[in-house]
Order: sequence, then structure tokens, then C-alpha cells
Amino acid sequence: MSSSDWLSTLETPFLLIDESRFIRNINRLYSHIEHLGGKIRPHLKTLRSSEAAKYLLKDASSPATVSTLAEAEGFVAAGYTNILYAVGISPHKLTRVANLLNKGINIHILLDTQEQALAVAEYAKANNVTFSVFIEIDCDGHRGGIRPDSGDLIELAKLVDGNGATLTGLLTHAGESYSCRTGEQLRAAAKAECDAVRQAARRIREVGIACPILSVGSTPTAHYVEDLSGITEVRAGVFSTFDLVMKNIGVCTLDDIAMSVVTTVIGRNKEKGWIFIDAGWMAMSRDRGTAEGPIDYGYGQVCNLDGYPYPDLYVAMTNQEHGIIVLSAESGMKTEDFPVGTRLRILPNHACATASMYLQYQVMKQGSSEQETWHRITGW
Amino acid sequence: MSSSDWLSTLETPFLLIDESRFIRNINRLYSHIEHLGGKIRPHLKTLRSSEAAKYLLKDASSPATVSTLAEAEGFVAAGYTNILYAVGISPHKLTRVANLLNKGINIHILLDTQEQALAVAEYAKANNVTFSVFIEIDCDGHRGGIRPDSGDLIELAKLVDGNGATLTGLLTHAGESYSCRTGEQLRAAAKAECDAVRQAARRIREVGIACPILSVGSTPTAHYVEDLSGITEVRAGVFSTFDLVMKNIGVCTLDDIAMSVVTTVIGRNKEKGWIFIDAGWMAMSRDRGTAEGPIDYGYGQVCNLDGYPYPDLYVAMTNQEHGIIVLSAESGMKTEDFPVGTRLRILPNHACATASMYLQYQVMKQGSSEQETWHRITGW
Repeated sequence: MSSSDWLSTLETPFLLIDESRFIRNINRLYSHIEHLGGKIRPHLKTLRSSEAAKYLLKDASSPATVSTLAEAEGFVAAGYTNILYAVGISPHKLTRVANLLNKGINIHILLDTQEQALAVAEYAKANNVTFSVFIEIDCDGHRGGIRPDSGDLIELAKLVDGNGATLTGLLTHAGESYSCRTGEQLRAAAKAECDAVRQAARRIREVGIACPILSVGSTPTAHYVEDLSGITEVRAGVFSTFDLVMKNIGVCTLDDIAMSVVTTVIGRNKEKGWIFIDAGWMAMSRDRGTAEGPIDYGYGQVCNLDGYPYPDLYVAMTNQEHGIIVLSAESGMKTEDFPVGTRLRILPNHACATASMYLQYQVMKQGSSEQETWHRITGW
Repeated sequence: MSSSDWLSTLETPFLLIDESRFIRNINRLYSHIEHLGGKIRPHLKTLRSSEAAKYLLKDASSPATVSTLAEAEGFVAAGYTNILYAVGISPHKLTRVANLLNKGINIHILLDTQEQALAVAEYAKANNVTFSVFIEIDCDGHRGGIRPDSGDLIELAKLVDGNGATLTGLLTHAGESYSCRTGEQLRAAAKAECDAVRQAARRIREVGIACPILSVGSTPTAHYVEDLSGITEVRAGVFSTFDLVMKNIGVCTLDDIAMSVVTTVIGRNKEKGWIFIDAGWMAMSRDRGTAEGPIDYGYGQVCNLDGYPYPDLYVAMTNQEHGIIVLSAESGMKTEDFPVGTRLRILPNHACATASMYLQYQVMKQGSSEQETWHRITGW
């Protein structure tokens, strides 16, 4: 089947990955980070797919990041052995972590409270297991973590290390970088991220705890970081596909976005200049991440089936299984330009959220007309 | 296992259905509509589950509504035989519809353009099949459909009926009723919905087309309709579980909401008064349907594990796998009130969107401590 054949015949809506762009995005960030002497610990939460992970992880022991234990277990089943579960550990989840440790998997957990450290120590003692722990550092007040200058930090490090656990590293995530809009702001956010873990590590190492791995990262800061001295690894997730939120931040162009939803025109309202498509919020997700950005793309940027964006044409509204494209005057398009049955591609606001609506992805292979299917690891 | 046991031990996050409330909500609407001499054609898109459908469909031939052909095929596999696919038909989907017709299934399709009618006629002729068609009527300018007084309507009805298809009925949906806030507005929206199909039917029947089924409905209007004379059936979907959007409209109370997400506290930020939970937008969905309502519930209303709502306590922010509950001064709660490991229940903004994030639902059975699992039909 030629590429245009299966794009035109597979049931819609479906999620399409453009392998050529996907590879280009990965090469871009990996080259940048390797050039700075760092390495990537990719966050696999965007696609949660072992077929996709092959492009990101060079070998079975390459470092990876996940957001659920279901992903950890899924990637272990696919052969990967070095996994950071980068969401604060809940004590009841320690049994599943211990099961992976007992299989010889290098699984790391994250925490930022004494309560969690005590639960880890207690479980470790009762079950004769040693956990590998990262402490979360707060570099920008975005979410959780301990400030690098906090007294609690040293206390927590001492409580963790040697008490049923090894303090393997420190982790921070510059979540606030998503509101940056200039290269200068992004470089500053990237520096602040590195400075926070460097400062925290210095203080912890002064009290004799090795804490060998310093882990930073977010897709925006990873592309703008200039100095990785002392930093072991950089985490990033959405960079492999990018999306309209990243376009709005300025980290990619529309032509870099490797994910789209293929949809079919199912009707119109001529008076209102509305086109109905079979991609509603079930196909796009409810994510409105560009709502407050420099360009509000609604529920997505409309492209033709070859992937060329129509200027100023967005999915303005969605119901569960209907999307509504509003033909703006600026777009210069008319309802007759989109007969019932026309296929379109929609670029998503937020690739992680859109991918979460699918159990599988259809992949357009680089330089070939072949279709490949990747599968998503589901659940928690 | 007693109810409190499995609620406290199942891996979080998970989606919980309270069977007792679910049954109560169903009985409420069914009694109201049957009292008016109508019948319900429930929309199964909220849960997309054949276990849930048993509560809504009295027998195999009870009328049902779906939003995808995947649902139609799934409910047929579960034994149901009378299904309205209530999204405008795309010509390439006719083969799957014909396959169901050829199995003896009473499947109905929806359209509102001549293009669709011509595609249906062409396919029917080529494949020796007769489709059952509903025409979509626009009662409030919300989405698609033809105005009941439009000249196009009669033309379309004539084009459909006897031309590879039977015009089985007219369908309308008062989507604008979601912005109603008073009983008076809702009663007016319900009346407008009925009036629109009655007017359209009168005109079509005058030209000799029987068009026997008149189908109206949305959850808000279904609860407020007062006169169903001439109307065959009422469609509603989210009424069985309700959600915070319906609470804001005034169709239900918090105590009626039969769906919640069970989550675990995984950390805190004491200075900010933030509680972190393991239900992020992957667990709640990105739906912010209450953002412009009388109460903005953020990503959901926080309840204790027994289901009692904490006043003024909402999931204010979400990342993929983190939810952040911000302890407002009004709530009177402190971070110490929610130790790591505490389980909470979160009521969702939009039940359809939250359910779409799960492959299965855990059901708390009425008057019993048993746990039951319902399964979701996936895909398109």
C-alpha cells in the first residue's frame, strides 16, 4: 500500500506519527545535550510505547523516565532495565517497586517528605530490599520538591541514605519554563534548574553522602541549556513529537510537529462557515494548552492530508465526537473547499494529552510508504 | 472483602461508580419520561460499557444511542439490536453500517446534507442494502442540522426516503441547554427542542413521508421537559452518573454524582498549602467544563473516601500524573489533615471525559461490600 492509500482508507480518527520528523527531533536534542557532555534520560510518558522507546534508548540499560508504575512494568517487559519513576512515591506502591528490584531492575523512586522516607525505610527493613531514591528539588516553585537551600534537605538526605535506601540522586523539573516566551527567559530557566541541583548536591555531599546522579530537565530548558557541568543527565519527553504548546513557547516550528490526528469531514453549516469533522475531544483530548499562548489554536491546527497547515484554520470547538472548524475570514477558505469525506490532519495542542486518547498510533515511515503500528502501555 | 477494604487497597487512581446513585439517577429520569408518555433512548457514550447498559436497556431490542461505530459493534456483540449512531455519517463508514444491517441489526444513521444522502443512495444501490436514516434538525444553532422551517429540509427528506433508505425519523439535540442556569430557561429549551422536531415532522409528513420517530434530548432538557406529545423518544447520556457541570446547571446535587476518581496523597507543600495527589489530568481528563460556571471546581471536587465533599476544596491544578489540591482559607483544612497515603475521592467536571481516560471502572454495589468491574468499549 502506498502512503496515500492507507492515509485515505484507515478508519478515522486515528493518530499519526511522522517518523521522519520524530527522528529529526530526537537527533536535534540528543546532539545538543551530547555536545554539552550530558546524556538524555528521555521521559517516555508522551507515547508510553516500547516501539517508540527504541528510537530513544540506545540499549537495554539506557536511562529512562516514566510517570507510572504501569509504564515501568511495560518497559521492563520490553527489556529495559534502568528506569526512574519520576512521581512522588506513595507507600502502597512500594510492593510493585520491590518486585522490579527483585527482578534485577535498576528502578529509582522519587520523594520529598520525611513521611515517604520513613515508609521506604520501614518497607525495606520488613522486606529485606534496598531502594534507589532520588530527592525532588524545587527550582522554581512550580510543583513539589525541597528548596536547595532548605534545612529540611540535609535532614531528609540523611534519613534516606543507608536507611533501607541509597540516595542515588537529585531531580528537578523547571515546570515554570512553560510560561517562558523568549530565548533569554529559557536560558535563564535552564541555568536556574542546573544551579538548583548543583547547590543542593554540594550541601548533601558536604555531609558525606555521595548522591551521584544530578538530573534536570523539561523540553523547553533542555533545548536552551548552555552549561551542563556537574549535571549527569537531562530529562525531556514531548520533544520527540513536539506540539502547538511547544510551538508557542518557541522551541519548535509547525513543521517539526511529528504528531497529528487524521480526521474526515462529516458535514457543514454554510451560513456560519463551520466544517464538522469526526475528531472531537475524544480524538484531540480536552487540552486547551494554547488558550493563553501567543496563538490560540483552539483544539488544533488544521492541515491537509499531506501535512501542510492551512493558515489561520483551527478546530475552534469540540463535542465528544464532533470537531468544528470555523472558517475565519483570514483563512480565505469556504465550506465548499471541504466536501464531506475530505480527510484532514490536525496538529495537537499537547501531544501527551492527545496520545493518551489512543491505544495505538499509526506511523508513516521515513522514505517509505509503509504503515507501522505502535502500541501504548495503558493504566497505572 | 468489605467495601472499605478494596477502596483502600486497589491501585490508585481508579474510577469508581456508586451503583446506588447510578440506579437512583436512572429511575429518576425514566419515571419522569414514562410519566409523560415518552420513552428513553439512552446515549451510551458516557460509559461505553455493556455492563452499564444492562441498567439502561430493558431488553435486547430497547432503543440505544451511540457516538461511534465501535460502540455500535460492541453493543451488538453484547446482544443489543436497536442502535442509533448519532453522529453525521461519513460515506466511508457505510460499509461497517451495512455489515450490521446484514446481521439483522436495527442500526440507524444520521445526516443533514445532500452529499451524505447521495452517498447513502449510491452505496445502497451498489450493495443492495436499505439504510435507516434520521435527519438532524437544528433547534438552537448549537452545532449541525437543518432548521425546521428550511426549504432544504423537504428536499433532503425526499432525496433520502425511498432512495436506498427509509427516513425513519428526525433527531435534535439542545446543546445550548448546557448554558441554561434556571428552571425557566431549561423548560424553554426543552420546549424549543420538541417544537423544532414537531414542526419539521409536520412539514415532511405533509409531503407524504411517514418519518415515524421523533427523537429529542440532552440531559438538561430531558429533566425539564413538560410535554412530550408527538415526541417518540428522549435521548440523554450523562444523567446516569451526573457530574459537576450538571450540578452547575442545576440538574443534580453533589450527592447525586455517581462517578468519582479514587486517589492517594503523595506529598505536600506546606508553605503554599498544597496537597499532591496521584490523580493528574490522565486520571481526571483535561476537561475544565466548570471553568465558567457558577462554581469553578478546578479539575474536581475533593471528597473523603466515604464520598463526603469537603466544602471549598478542589483539585486546582494538574500535571500528567500529579493533581494539586490548594487548601483555601474557606476550606478550613491544613496540610497535616492529609498525610501521605490518605485516600480521597474526586468528583469529575465532565463524566464522559473522565470515563474516557479508563479502560475499566470499579463499581461499589448497592447495599453490599462487593466490588464489580465494568469494561469500556474502546476506539472508533
